[in-house]
Amino acid sequence: MTKKKEIKLGVFLAGTGHHVASWRHPEAPADASMNLDYFKELAQTAERGKLDMLFLADSLSIDGKSHPNVLTRFEPFTLLSALAQVTAHIGLTATASTTYSEPFHIARQFASLDHLSNGRAGWNVVTSSIESTALNFSGEEHLEHRLRYQRAEEFVEVVKGLWDSWEEDAFIRDKESGEFFDKEKMHELNHKGTYFSVRGPLNVSRSPQGRPVIIQAGSSGDGKALAAKTAEVIFTAQNHMESAREFYQSIKEQAVSFGRDPEKIAIMPGIFPIIGDTEEEAKTKYEELQDLIIPSVGLNILQNYLGGIDLSSYPLDGPLPELDAEASNAVKSRFKLVQDMAKRDNMTIRELYKYVAGSRGHHIFVGTPEQLADKMEEWVENQACDGFNIMPPLLPEGLNLFVDKVIPILQDRGVFRKEYEGTTLRKHFGLEKPANRYAE
Amino acid sequence: MTKKKEIKLGVFLAGTGHHVASWRHPEAPADASMNLDYFKELAQTAERGKLDMLFLADSLSIDGKSHPNVLTRFEPFTLLSALAQVTAHIGLTATASTTYSEPFHIARQFASLDHLSNGRAGWNVVTSSIESTALNFSGEEHLEHRLRYQRAEEFVEVVKGLWDSWEEDAFIRDKESGEFFDKEKMHELNHKGTYFSVRGPLNVSRSPQGRPVIIQAGSSGDGKALAAKTAEVIFTAQNHMESAREFYQSIKEQAVSFGRDPEKIAIMPGIFPIIGDTEEEAKTKYEELQDLIIPSVGLNILQNYLGGIDLSSYPLDGPLPELDAEASNAVKSRFKLVQDMAKRDNMTIRELYKYVAGSRGHHIFVGTPEQLADKMEEWVENQACDGFNIMPPLLPEGLNLFVDKVIPILQDRGVFRKEYEGTTLRKHFGLEKPANRYAE
Ligand SMILES: Cc1cc2nc3c(=O)[nH]c(=O)nc-3n(C[C@H](O)[C@H](O)[C@H](O)COP(=O)(O)O)c2cc1C
Ligand SMILES: Cc1cc2nc3c(=O)[nH]c(=O)nc-3n(C[C@H](O)[C@H](O)[C@H](O)COP(=O)(O)O)c2cc1C
Repeated sequence: MTKKKEIKLGVFLAGTGHHVASWRHPEAPADASMNLDYFKELAQTAERGKLDMLFLADSLSIDGKSHPNVLTRFEPFTLLSALAQVTAHIGLTATASTTYSEPFHIARQFASLDHLSNGRAGWNVVTSSIESTALNFSGEEHLEHRLRYQRAEEFVEVVKGLWDSWEEDAFIRDKESGEFFDKEKMHELNHKGTYFSVRGPLNVSRSPQGRPVIIQAGSSGDGKALAAKTAEVIFTAQNHMESAREFYQSIKEQAVSFGRDPEKIAIMPGIFPIIGDTEEEAKTKYEELQDLIIPSVGLNILQNYLGGIDLSSYPLDGPLPELDAEASNAVKSRFKLVQDMAKRDNMTIRELYKYVAGSRGHHIFVGTPEQLADKMEEWVENQACDGFNIMPPLLPEGLNLFVDKVIPILQDRGVFRKEYEGTTLRKHFGLEKPANRYAE
Repeated sequence: MTKKKEIKLGVFLAGTGHHVASWRHPEAPADASMNLDYFKELAQTAERGKLDMLFLADSLSIDGKSHPNVLTRFEPFTLLSALAQVTAHIGLTATASTTYSEPFHIARQFASLDHLSNGRAGWNVVTSSIESTALNFSGEEHLEHRLRYQRAEEFVEVVKGLWDSWEEDAFIRDKESGEFFDKEKMHELNHKGTYFSVRGPLNVSRSPQGRPVIIQAGSSGDGKALAAKTAEVIFTAQNHMESAREFYQSIKEQAVSFGRDPEKIAIMPGIFPIIGDTEEEAKTKYEELQDLIIPSVGLNILQNYLGGIDLSSYPLDGPLPELDAEASNAVKSRFKLVQDMAKRDNMTIRELYKYVAGSRGHHIFVGTPEQLADKMEEWVENQACDGFNIMPPLLPEGLNLFVDKVIPILQDRGVFRKEYEGTTLRKHFGLEKPANRYAE
């Protein structure tokens, strides 16, 4: 019997949960997005479940229409650094934008977090898709999509370069001779590129992982190319096993074309699991949440998915009108997703907004722990993914259920760890510590 | 009998201590600047001593000649957020530059830290004086001194504005009606100025202190003006009580001219205390540290103080040559300090480098706990300052001695708190929570 492939698991923590109306649920702690004790509890639960990592999204702009979870929230580096102090194994990953920051700051913050967590930091590289972000950063125009990704690629290169500023054994600290470090082992990067010129060295020693883990979630052509070139973990929204298989294969092939080992890239679609002891119970739970969506909120989210198209003149219980994808400024993959669902499943505007507003386009699962374990195994066996980023609709309930009911099944089946094999995020993912570019 | 004035106390944490050769001391943990357990212990000791705050310096550029403590170190936000988890009262303050960051990021990180520490954050506003910092941030020219301070003033205004984005009671979270927040209590800043245009709102709720405490350490005319206009705590390097009195009076007068209450500004010079049970013991300790300074390191620091002037052709045991202050690019107050000492006390180059290299220009005290308590009381009574930023030459020893031997004396004399009066940094400083500009 060949050994079954281990599933990789992350949990995407977000306020009261990923369902847009979760905060209205009677059990939801409505102040969740800025409640530290609550985040500590979630992090510790995820660690009890031996999950590979927890994940925080981020954005640098809000408006009055934002999801309550993201309206106000902790800044990710400060939150993860706090969570690092109450956990010991789980990976701590956060999103940071390459469009509105500087490589020196980002390199430094992740390196510092990697030290403070003993090697558990990961960076989800995003280019920031919200146009209005530019207005919070002195109105430099929001770069167009292609240029954002060009900047991102150079940004990641600079950050990796800065992470190599110091060789592992650079610090001698010989009290007798007074030699604190070996000058040959400190390196200036002297990067001069299109978007950045950065001398270095970074003022943080080489971090426990050598390099924090690089995560990417782009799904346009440029986004996928950046992922295939640089990412070690890839998040994606995939609703059907077939399209997930295509995505998986295309990314891994592209990675090979860049000279990378496809085994060293973990592809992890989001999954939005509504778990019940019976299918019936799960369905009822889902309906309960769906019924909490306020129509104007739901419609607004659908409109945003479609790039701001105004649907208010169409009946909620009628079909989606014909829309011009080219004319829209939407995230292309999201636009296509909605249009495909509308056509394939004949969904009404109300059904569509309930679908996207609830899970924001991620794979919705409704069923028992056994069924969820089956589904996960099936996807991994069929090379549709290497694991999942769990997006519980309602927290803490959804995470508790996952850890207490689904994890033990996966463990029994031999597809998920019973104990952490190590203490670094790289170790969890079976990734080696990269060599410093300057080391012999 | 009138009640004596309470002394305010901070501790400036830095690797193995503030003496440039402290890392060579037999008891120094030479890896201190990146050792989290060590920082936790220091923070807890400072809190045991009921100190108002701990303070972290920062810089965004290094070279091979940097002080070992600052060569590599933790990034301040991530470090303070970790320390917030192992302390409950002490203020947590960090330096962040207005020249190389964006107000949205800085506003957000301090607001987040203020939440994660339940109201203990403070920001030391600096303009970054190291020229080469520009080279790590895509070579935008290092702004000239006056423009740096113009930018800083606007930067602080924007940050304060962003901190008012949400009124205290903006979040209704009415599950029944579905109203998450009161739109009237969320505010866009819509700042458009010379250096920044920032729309807002900030994506962090109003923080426990309303506004983190603002600290400033500039000592040029522009620096002092910014401090008098915006700072609630002012750090300064003062070596003599007379000049400290002048500084104190001029800042407080200037503050009044800006319509501020001078009582709400705490002026805290750095002090570099070498404490012994006897004066003799203290002197021996100091000599021990001074003898650890490597001449080339010491001379280099002196040269930097003088703006990079080359002294290598002058005998170490001879006088400082005549130098042209105008031609030098040095921090003016430092240049003057060195020149004054050289003339007044007839110091040789070696004596000068020992003086500045050891304490980097801060007030050096050598003596017993009683004598130190006397000195502190004297300065505060004579309106030379409101308290001190303790800069222990050697850590953890210097902080342990201060907390165990000096604090009890100050407490017995009724000039220092025996218990914290509250849990926020504002409370420690007797500062009220500022009203939100938009609140009625
Ligand atoms: C699981 C997941 C998490 C994401 N988190 C963020 C985030 O926190 N912030 C953000 O700006 N974008 C986030 N994205 C969006 C992606 O980074 C990317 O912008 C989006 O998938 C569109 O890709 P494209 O620009 O390549 O079309 C996330 C996407 C996924 C699938
Ligand atoms: C106690 C103290 C701490 C300081 N910490 C920093 C620091 O961490 N980073 C920095 O760039 N400058 C720091 N400075 C320097 C001041 O911000 C300022 O640049 C310096 O005093 C020169 O002032 P000027 O530019 O107004 O002449 C500090 C100064 C003092 C007195």
